[in-house]
Amino acid sequence: MAQPGPLAGITVVDLSRILAGPYCTLLLAELGARVIKVETPTGDDARQYGPFTNGKSTYFASVNRGKESIALDLKAPGDREIFERLLDKADAIVENFRPGTMERLGYGWETLHKRYPRLIYAAASGFGHSGPFSHYPSYDMVVQGLGGIMSITGNPGEPSPRIGTSVGDLAGGLYTTIALNAALLHRERTGEATKVDVGLFDCQLALLENAIMRYTTSGEIPGPLGARHPSITPFEAFKAQDGDIIIAAGNDGLWLKLTEALGHPELAQNPNYKTNPLRNQHQPQLKAEIDAILSTNTRDHWLSVLEAAGLPCGPVNNVAQAIAHPQVEARNMLIEVDDATTGPLKLVGNPMKFSAFDDPHTRAPAPDLDADRAKILRELGM
Amino acid sequence: MAQPGPLAGITVVDLSRILAGPYCTLLLAELGARVIKVETPTGDDARQYGPFTNGKSTYFASVNRGKESIALDLKAPGDREIFERLLDKADAIVENFRPGTMERLGYGWETLHKRYPRLIYAAASGFGHSGPFSHYPSYDMVVQGLGGIMSITGNPGEPSPRIGTSVGDLAGGLYTTIALNAALLHRERTGEATKVDVGLFDCQLALLENAIMRYTTSGEIPGPLGARHPSITPFEAFKAQDGDIIIAAGNDGLWLKLTEALGHPELAQNPNYKTNPLRNQHQPQLKAEIDAILSTNTRDHWLSVLEAAGLPCGPVNNVAQAIAHPQVEARNMLIEVDDATTGPLKLVGNPMKFSAFDDPHTRAPAPDLDADRAKILRELGM
Repeated sequence: MAQPGPLAGITVVDLSRILAGPYCTLLLAELGARVIKVETPTGDDARQYGPFTNGKSTYFASVNRGKESIALDLKAPGDREIFERLLDKADAIVENFRPGTMERLGYGWETLHKRYPRLIYAAASGFGHSGPFSHYPSYDMVVQGLGGIMSITGNPGEPSPRIGTSVGDLAGGLYTTIALNAALLHRERTGEATKVDVGLFDCQLALLENAIMRYTTSGEIPGPLGARHPSITPFEAFKAQDGDIIIAAGNDGLWLKLTEALGHPELAQNPNYKTNPLRNQHQPQLKAEIDAILSTNTRDHWLSVLEAAGLPCGPVNNVAQAIAHPQVEARNMLIEVDDATTGPLKLVGNPMKFSAFDDPHTRAPAPDLDADRAKILRELGM
Repeated sequence: MAQPGPLAGITVVDLSRILAGPYCTLLLAELGARVIKVETPTGDDARQYGPFTNGKSTYFASVNRGKESIALDLKAPGDREIFERLLDKADAIVENFRPGTMERLGYGWETLHKRYPRLIYAAASGFGHSGPFSHYPSYDMVVQGLGGIMSITGNPGEPSPRIGTSVGDLAGGLYTTIALNAALLHRERTGEATKVDVGLFDCQLALLENAIMRYTTSGEIPGPLGARHPSITPFEAFKAQDGDIIIAAGNDGLWLKLTEALGHPELAQNPNYKTNPLRNQHQPQLKAEIDAILSTNTRDHWLSVLEAAGLPCGPVNNVAQAIAHPQVEARNMLIEVDDATTGPLKLVGNPMKFSAFDDPHTRAPAPDLDADRAKILRELGM
């Protein structure tokens, strides 16, 4: 059932719900791990999130494809025994409860580590397992707001938008996956298992990249910049007659090429535009000059001119345009899932390609609640 | 020199420049790997990116802390010999050139794999190493535009903003790190080394999460939604007297709690608000009602009321407010680097915490160009 991949032979018991943890275990499944989703008898909350097709959440279906499901009441003795037998066979456990939940169930790290010394434990929580806010509840959007990314996104003077995708949860899932893979390697090399503790809020700070350094070195609070880069120019969206074009001239050589491709080599002679720091300082003026040039023709015209000159450039695609890009099919980035309830689904593929493994075009569907109970019990000899 | 961590003993030869590759190797260094940055004689382009302190790029300093540097001209025979001796000792090589560059240098995967059968090769390029656009140049902002994330971010009717942080490059770095760690595990378990091929454009699609599923199942093209979630309500920014508050009521229980905390339990009786799908359908009306309630008092008042009720909520912080959050110090998310040129720097810490490893408060600085040449040559016996 598992995909081919570098995590073949790894079994993950997954207690996580909604997105941050399930995104981590989705990636683990994509890398070849067997993921056994242990749900409460009422199931992952995400099973109630729309949109629905034939009554099944396609939101849930997209994040949980290729996993198995067993419903267990971790307060009931019989189900606890099943859970503990599962852990005997597992390499890692993943959970995204509020801190303390696992301890209340009797399955905190200290307890599990004594009984299962080779079991890796990965927790993705809103604020992490330490510190004064550790026990506060959190969701994606709360950490997007707290972590500062909204404050540097958007157009100056307008309300800060949420990042259109759940980067609060997704970043948490990504860092948890990195840490868990590193922990698996460490265990393989030394025999030692470790707990991984990732806070979604911490991950938002990590994603701020140079914004924190800019603030701590200059004392200036970064604000939203519309569609441009804070320290590289020209590196932003410009206006052609019928749409926006992004041009990213990341160094002086590309800047010279750009002035020629635009048919205005004299721009390169302007002393205000000689170096990237100067161009960055005179960005409003330079943007106005380039907008004026681009306004003389269409987006497609300029894109073909700039592409022919080898300049990094492109349109601002909507989702339909993005997945229609020829590279998407060539890179197998839209895979198919034959789901018995919803019918065929087209979902985003795996961006991690390996020379040693195939990247099949189809994936197993997300499981119905408790769908794999009989098979799992049989394997456990129960 | 390396940090304590699960990748202790792993050596990475890093040919990457600017951000996507260097962000991957920053994470590897944070996880305990030794990262040897092999730069051209003129150095990583990012050494020219501002802001500068005492002439040194703090942009470069933030992404390259804890790495070593040797400058090599890979077209010069003597330097090629040094490079090849380095690869003898390396576990992995990371590069983010345009596809074909390594082949032209005689160091493509096929060649390296024959000579160094245990060497893992990780490439992060704009469009990946296959497909008709493979050879196109790319930068962060180009893939942000192409991949669709800009089109679902921002306020309806306004120009699409760039995500304020370089999620094009950062996502590429994150997925490359996951894949590389998985490849290290696979090698440890089987002896087989693999090439990892990550395209930044593919990673943008992967980050779209449910937007692709929403489009492929409904045919509707997702647009920007300001500061709200597409399928959960209430899950957005609301207006108190003196500022915005994010409230994320991700399930019916939290919704009921919210109506009580706001002092308006009658909202829960409105048939339009009974379930999440209904609330999502009547979002404009519900937002107006909650805004009206919040406008009767201050942000701090409502945050303390909502926090006391256990509701996921928070302010929209700027970067200064974000790093002043008490959790930042408690989680060691602002570390210190004592850089001889710039003076002390405060940079974002590592969001991946392990029970088995310390998370020190200081890090080694980013290297000057070629700073570690003598030591490296000595180690190689050259």
